[in-house]
Amino acid sequence: MTAETNTKYDLFGKLKAKPGKGDELIAILMENAQTDSPMPGCLQYLIGKDPDNEELILISEVWETKEDHANSLKLESVRAAIARAMPLLDGMPEKGIVWEVVGGLGLAS
Amino acid sequence: MTAETNTKYDLFGKLKAKPGKGDELIAILMENAQTDSPMPGCLQYLIGKDPDNEELILISEVWETKEDHANSLKLESVRAAIARAMPLLDGMPEKGIVWEVVGGLGLAS
Repeated sequence: MTAETNTKYDLFGKLKAKPGKGDELIAILMENAQTDSPMPGCLQYLIGKDPDNEELILISEVWETKEDHANSLKLESVRAAIARAMPLLDGMPEKGIVWEVVGGLGLAS
Repeated sequence: MTAETNTKYDLFGKLKAKPGKGDELIAILMENAQTDSPMPGCLQYLIGKDPDNEELILISEVWETKEDHANSLKLESVRAAIARAMPLLDGMPEKGIVWEVVGGLGLAS
Protein backbone atom coordinates (compact mmCIF):
# COMPACT_ATOMS: atom_id res chain seq x y z
CA MET A 1 0.00 0.00 0.00
CA THR A 2 1.55 3.35 -0.97
CA ALA A 3 1.90 5.94 1.74
CA GLU A 4 -0.84 8.31 0.65
CA THR A 5 -0.34 11.73 2.21
CA ASN A 6 -2.66 14.68 2.28
CA THR A 7 -1.04 17.30 0.11
CA LYS A 8 2.04 18.82 1.64
CA TYR A 9 3.81 22.11 0.97
CA ASP A 10 7.17 21.46 -0.60
CA LEU A 11 10.11 23.54 -1.64
CA PHE A 12 13.12 22.61 -3.72
CA GLY A 13 15.62 25.42 -3.73
CA LYS A 14 19.19 26.25 -4.68
CA LEU A 15 21.66 28.56 -2.94
CA LYS A 16 24.90 29.65 -4.62
CA ALA A 17 27.76 30.09 -2.14
CA LYS A 18 30.73 32.34 -2.69
CA PRO A 19 33.86 30.44 -3.80
CA GLY A 20 35.12 28.20 -0.99
CA LYS A 21 32.08 28.91 1.21
CA GLY A 22 29.91 25.89 0.25
CA ASP A 23 30.76 23.75 3.26
CA GLU A 24 30.41 26.67 5.67
CA LEU A 25 26.93 27.39 4.26
CA ILE A 26 25.97 23.71 4.56
CA ALA A 27 27.07 23.71 8.20
CA ILE A 28 24.77 26.66 9.00
CA LEU A 29 21.83 25.03 7.20
CA MET A 30 22.45 21.79 9.06
CA GLU A 31 21.98 23.60 12.35
CA ASN A 32 18.43 24.32 11.20
CA ALA A 33 17.89 20.63 10.60
CA GLN A 34 18.44 19.71 14.22
CA THR A 35 16.45 16.63 15.13
CA ASP A 36 16.27 17.77 18.76
CA SER A 37 14.60 21.12 18.06
CA PRO A 38 12.66 20.57 14.86
CA MET A 39 10.77 23.44 13.24
CA PRO A 40 7.02 22.83 13.84
CA GLY A 41 5.39 21.24 10.76
CA CYS A 42 8.71 20.49 9.11
CA LEU A 43 8.56 16.89 7.87
CA GLN A 44 11.79 17.09 5.94
CA TYR A 45 14.73 19.40 5.49
CA LEU A 46 17.40 17.77 3.33
CA ILE A 47 20.58 19.63 2.49
CA GLY A 48 22.94 18.65 -0.28
CA LYS A 49 25.11 19.84 -3.12
CA ASP A 50 25.56 19.60 -6.83
CA PRO A 51 28.18 16.88 -7.41
CA ASP A 52 29.76 19.02 -10.12
CA ASN A 53 29.67 22.33 -8.25
CA GLU A 54 30.67 22.45 -4.57
CA GLU A 55 29.21 25.97 -4.24
CA LEU A 56 25.72 25.03 -5.47
CA ILE A 57 23.78 24.00 -2.37
CA LEU A 58 20.37 22.36 -2.72
CA ILE A 59 17.62 22.11 -0.15
CA SER A 60 14.53 19.90 -0.27
CA GLU A 61 11.87 20.83 2.24
CA VAL A 62 8.55 19.14 3.04
CA TRP A 63 6.16 21.02 5.30
CA GLU A 64 2.78 20.00 6.65
CA THR A 65 1.37 23.37 5.51
CA LYS A 66 2.42 26.61 3.84
CA GLU A 67 1.70 28.40 7.13
CA ASP A 68 4.13 26.13 9.00
CA HIS A 69 6.84 27.16 6.57
CA ALA A 70 5.97 30.85 6.89
CA ASN A 71 5.96 30.57 10.69
CA SER A 72 9.40 28.95 10.66
CA LEU A 73 10.84 32.11 9.14
CA LYS A 74 9.79 33.94 12.32
CA LEU A 75 11.74 31.60 14.61
CA GLU A 76 14.75 33.29 16.25
CA SER A 77 16.98 30.31 15.38
CA VAL A 78 16.02 30.47 11.70
CA ARG A 79 16.37 34.25 11.50
CA ALA A 80 19.82 34.00 13.08
CA ALA A 81 20.87 31.27 10.63
CA ILE A 82 19.66 33.33 7.66
CA ALA A 83 21.61 36.35 8.92
CA ARG A 84 24.78 34.21 9.14
CA ALA A 85 24.18 32.60 5.75
CA MET A 86 23.45 35.72 3.69
CA PRO A 87 27.09 37.02 3.60
CA LEU A 88 28.19 33.62 2.24
CA LEU A 89 25.82 33.78 -0.74
CA ASP A 90 26.94 34.68 -4.23
CA GLY A 91 23.93 36.78 -5.19
CA MET A 92 20.34 36.56 -4.04
CA PRO A 93 18.78 33.10 -3.73
CA GLU A 94 16.68 31.97 -6.69
CA LYS A 95 13.00 31.42 -5.96
CA GLY A 96 12.67 27.73 -5.24
CA ILE A 97 10.27 25.30 -6.88
CA VAL A 98 7.02 25.14 -4.91
CA TRP A 99 5.22 21.83 -5.31
CA GLU A 100 2.68 19.61 -3.58
CA VAL A 101 3.61 16.05 -2.61
CA VAL A 102 0.56 13.81 -3.01
CA GLY A 103 2.12 10.55 -1.98
CA GLY A 104 5.06 8.20 -2.14
CA LEU A 105 7.37 6.60 0.36
CA GLY A 106 10.22 7.65 2.57
CA LEU A 107 8.82 10.56 4.50
CA ALA A 108 9.60 10.04 8.16
CA SER A 109 6.08 10.01 9.59
CA MET B 1 22.05 16.35 16.65
CA THR B 2 21.45 16.61 12.93
CA ALA B 3 20.95 13.38 11.06
CA GLU B 4 24.26 13.23 9.26
CA THR B 5 24.05 10.89 6.27
CA ASN B 6 26.78 9.57 4.07
CA THR B 7 26.19 11.18 0.72
CA LYS B 8 23.15 9.85 -1.08
CA TYR B 9 22.24 9.88 -4.75
CA ASP B 10 19.30 12.15 -5.31
CA LEU B 11 17.14 13.09 -8.23
CA PHE B 12 14.61 15.86 -8.57
CA GLY B 13 12.72 15.55 -11.82
CA LYS B 14 9.72 16.85 -13.68
CA LEU B 15 7.36 15.01 -16.04
CA LYS B 16 4.89 16.86 -18.24
CA ALA B 17 1.64 14.92 -18.74
CA LYS B 18 -0.64 15.35 -21.72
CA PRO B 19 -3.70 17.51 -20.95
CA GLY B 20 -5.98 15.72 -18.49
CA LYS B 21 -3.49 12.89 -17.90
CA GLY B 22 -1.75 14.25 -14.77
CA ASP B 23 -3.68 12.18 -12.24
CA GLU B 24 -3.37 9.02 -14.33
CA LEU B 25 0.40 9.51 -14.50
CA ILE B 26 0.58 10.09 -10.75
CA ALA B 27 -1.35 6.85 -10.15
CA ILE B 28 1.20 4.87 -12.17
CA LEU B 29 4.13 6.49 -10.36
CA MET B 30 2.49 5.77 -7.02
CA GLU B 31 2.47 2.07 -7.83
CA ASN B 32 6.27 2.31 -7.92
CA ALA B 33 6.26 3.80 -4.48
CA GLN B 34 4.69 0.76 -2.87
CA THR B 35 5.80 0.42 0.71
CA ASP B 36 5.31 -3.34 0.55
CA SER B 37 7.68 -3.95 -2.36
CA PRO B 38 10.21 -1.14 -2.14
CA MET B 39 12.93 -0.77 -4.76
CA PRO B 40 16.24 -1.84 -3.15
CA GLY B 41 18.24 1.19 -2.00
CA CYS B 42 15.32 3.57 -2.48
CA LEU B 43 15.11 5.72 0.65
CA GLN B 44 12.54 8.09 -0.76
CA TYR B 45 10.27 8.40 -3.75
CA LEU B 46 7.94 11.36 -3.37
CA ILE B 47 5.46 12.22 -6.09
CA GLY B 48 3.70 15.54 -6.39
CA LYS B 49 2.53 18.26 -8.72
CA ASP B 50 2.94 21.92 -9.48
CA PRO B 51 0.08 23.70 -7.68
CA ASP B 52 -0.37 25.94 -10.71
CA ASN B 53 -0.13 23.23 -13.36
CA GLU B 54 -1.94 19.91 -12.85
CA GLU B 55 0.01 18.35 -15.72
CA LEU B 56 3.46 19.12 -14.30
CA ILE B 57 4.37 16.13 -12.12
CA LEU B 58 7.41 16.31 -9.84
CA ILE B 59 9.36 13.46 -8.33
CA SER B 60 11.94 13.63 -5.54
CA GLU B 61 14.04 10.51 -5.17
CA VAL B 62 16.70 9.64 -2.61
CA TRP B 63 18.79 6.55 -3.26
CA GLU B 64 21.48 4.94 -1.18
CA THR B 65 23.72 4.82 -4.27
CA LYS B 66 23.72 5.66 -7.98
CA GLU B 67 23.94 1.92 -8.70
CA ASP B 68 20.77 1.26 -6.72
CA HIS B 69 18.95 3.74 -8.91
CA ALA B 70 20.39 2.23 -12.10
CA ASN B 71 19.42 -1.27 -10.93
CA SER B 72 15.85 -0.15 -10.25
CA LEU B 73 15.43 0.64 -13.93
CA LYS B 74 16.00 -3.07 -14.64
CA LEU B 75 13.17 -4.20 -12.37
CA GLU B 76 10.22 -5.67 -14.29
CA SER B 77 7.75 -3.60 -12.23
CA VAL B 78 9.59 -0.35 -13.02
CA ARG B 79 10.00 -1.17 -16.71
CA ALA B 80 6.28 -1.96 -16.94
CA ALA B 81 5.39 1.32 -15.20
CA ILE B 82 7.62 3.31 -17.56
CA ALA B 83 6.00 1.62 -20.57
CA ARG B 84 2.54 2.59 -19.26
CA ALA B 85 3.63 6.13 -18.39
CA MET B 86 5.38 7.06 -21.65
CA PRO B 87 2.19 7.42 -23.76
CA LEU B 88 0.84 9.87 -21.16
CA LEU B 89 3.84 12.21 -21.44
CA ASP B 90 3.78 15.46 -23.39
CA GLY B 91 7.26 15.22 -24.86
CA MET B 92 10.38 13.53 -23.52
CA PRO B 93 11.14 13.94 -19.81
CA GLU B 94 13.64 16.67 -18.93
CA LYS B 95 16.88 15.46 -17.37
CA GLY B 96 16.31 15.78 -13.64
CA ILE B 97 18.56 17.56 -11.16
CA VAL B 98 21.16 15.14 -9.77
CA TRP B 99 22.37 16.12 -6.32
CA GLU B 100 23.97 14.67 -3.20
CA VAL B 101 22.21 14.91 0.15
CA VAL B 102 24.81 15.39 2.90
CA GLY B 103 22.45 15.61 5.84
CA GLY B 104 19.28 16.98 7.31
CA LEU B 105 16.18 15.51 8.84
CA GLY B 106 13.12 13.65 7.68
CA LEU B 107 14.54 10.76 5.76
CA ALA B 108 12.86 7.57 6.91
CA SER B 109 15.91 5.63 8.13
